[in-house]
Amino acid sequence: MNKIERVNNVMNQKNCSQLLICDPFAIFYLTGNLIEPGERLYVMYINSTDNTQKLFVNKLFDMKNIPNVEVVYYSDDDDPVSILSGTIKNETVLIDKNFPAKFLLPLIKSTNANYLVSDILEYVRLVKTEDEINLMRESSRLNDEAMSLLVKNIKANQTELELLEILKSIKKELELDAFSFDPIIAFGKNAAEPHHVPNDTKLKEGDCIVIDMGFIKDNYCSDMTRTFFYKYASDFDKKIYDIVLHANQKAINEVKPDAKFSQIDLAARNFIEDNGYAKNFIHRTGHSIGIECHEFGAVSQDNYDLLKPGMIFSIEPGIYLIDKLGVRIEDLVLVTENGYEILNKYPKDLQVIN
Amino acid sequence: MNKIERVNNVMNQKNCSQLLICDPFAIFYLTGNLIEPGERLYVMYINSTDNTQKLFVNKLFDMKNIPNVEVVYYSDDDDPVSILSGTIKNETVLIDKNFPAKFLLPLIKSTNANYLVSDILEYVRLVKTEDEINLMRESSRLNDEAMSLLVKNIKANQTELELLEILKSIKKELELDAFSFDPIIAFGKNAAEPHHVPNDTKLKEGDCIVIDMGFIKDNYCSDMTRTFFYKYASDFDKKIYDIVLHANQKAINEVKPDAKFSQIDLAARNFIEDNGYAKNFIHRTGHSIGIECHEFGAVSQDNYDLLKPGMIFSIEPGIYLIDKLGVRIEDLVLVTENGYEILNKYPKDLQVIN
Repeated sequence: MNKIERVNNVMNQKNCSQLLICDPFAIFYLTGNLIEPGERLYVMYINSTDNTQKLFVNKLFDMKNIPNVEVVYYSDDDDPVSILSGTIKNETVLIDKNFPAKFLLPLIKSTNANYLVSDILEYVRLVKTEDEINLMRESSRLNDEAMSLLVKNIKANQTELELLEILKSIKKELELDAFSFDPIIAFGKNAAEPHHVPNDTKLKEGDCIVIDMGFIKDNYCSDMTRTFFYKYASDFDKKIYDIVLHANQKAINEVKPDAKFSQIDLAARNFIEDNGYAKNFIHRTGHSIGIECHEFGAVSQDNYDLLKPGMIFSIEPGIYLIDKLGVRIEDLVLVTENGYEILNKYPKDLQVIN
Repeated sequence: MNKIERVNNVMNQKNCSQLLICDPFAIFYLTGNLIEPGERLYVMYINSTDNTQKLFVNKLFDMKNIPNVEVVYYSDDDDPVSILSGTIKNETVLIDKNFPAKFLLPLIKSTNANYLVSDILEYVRLVKTEDEINLMRESSRLNDEAMSLLVKNIKANQTELELLEILKSIKKELELDAFSFDPIIAFGKNAAEPHHVPNDTKLKEGDCIVIDMGFIKDNYCSDMTRTFFYKYASDFDKKIYDIVLHANQKAINEVKPDAKFSQIDLAARNFIEDNGYAKNFIHRTGHSIGIECHEFGAVSQDNYDLLKPGMIFSIEPGIYLIDKLGVRIEDLVLVTENGYEILNKYPKDLQVIN
């Protein structure tokens, strides 16, 4: 099934034949066009009964020719909502959760349709197509490569910000399009904050080094975390690392079609709890990822949705010990027909950097 | 009048006593709290009749104590829309233009109020308070200083990206919080693109150098453009520079209370047109600025709103000659009781860098 067929399929299951999409990433997913429309109306209309697809866009923006999609251009002198409302039938219309009031209220007034918020596109995007899977594999392969290059550059007295600058030049060298989020580089006790912002802290012997990084390549995101130790790791460091590594592996072992997202979270969480660090694992185990770094589909205790082949998410348990250290180990994992494929190949065994 | 009084005032003029605000920057403007609520409901309710102000926020976020504002915390287990709807009276409610459908549709269902999109906060924020004006002055003072430091670092064979790296270290040195937009550094014919992204182009003799930059300091933005020439400027370069400089000054001369935004745009535009370059001035003359770099209030031909003391906007005419050069000169200008105050003091006379 292609992407539009998938969407139509879900619409039919919901007995709704009309859908309005305003999220530019969702429109990119369906049409290959990625623009920032600013304040201007940019909406895709899908009717699954008569199989029409229309894209309403200001003529300031050039759209690629998209098979089966009629592009309806309007100008700054037009009232785009009234042009759009002419297309809408007086039945139920599913809309994006963030559909803005400035377009929704006049649509409600000018049509007799019934508007309902839906997350069809979020659900459909959860399961990647074969093309998307290949783009995600390549994006993570490059992230692995960037990590290898970065680790070679770690040295005594370096600050977190200096290492970040090196990462920026690696990004350029590997022709990566952008970071998928602000990289986290944390030395020693800074690593006890999961979202630490790199600063002038200098690397010293015995520090842990948490590096959480990802890039965008050809519109698809990577995201990986590794934790290293500088010069030596104490027995306590090794113990904590070992617990997190096992938590990461136990969670990954749960990944197969029809398992629940919550099962993956609990596999990591219960193991950390059994080892006495329940209070030090202070976030969910992971998040879905694709065109955006954080997509719908949390790997959390309260997500009972079932895994399907083609889903890709992070598995990133961690233990955070204030004023001491932090350890997090994160991979992107793809659900396959029989189990899983780990997209990140960068080694996970405890590595002491000299 | 304080900020809330200003808002109440406009609500009374519109005969509406209820307002719901979801824009985090608008809530920052009124409460001093700046958060990124993500998918969670974060809404301020204002009733101008009984003078109540409530802030609805997930208890994950810590809010400062705000005089006269009741903070209503909810948890992830609550239905925040039903908590909010208990506060809303069955009268007209003004809402932000981007109020998201996921909150608006259930509000419409659970109340008998009449929802209308309004831009009250955008209008109120156009006129800065005395405190805001001082923050804007300081922000632009620092931008002037950054430009002085940057210009001293321009040298032969440097690339645009290298100069950008120097600007980043100046940002750090001056303890600026962030860029207010991605800086534009354009050499020679690259400057013919108003939104050029810095690349590996090397500076050479006779090039124009367009630098368009701004920072955020204490939540307020700066934005300034200067155009320099490297080693020499031809007579043609000087002519173009002179036209743009005069266009900038003619526009600034129009700034006084009760003038129209359109008048400022036309003063620059007509002068450029009279000199034969109408087709080479391809954007509006400026934009309002404050907490955000681009705020409501365009300095454009079709904005007939009247200027009031306390408004701050950019005046940035330019001439763009494809394959040749570009010249843009931009200042932030404050409307005063009698005329204007230019926030940027960095000189505008033609400067040849050696």
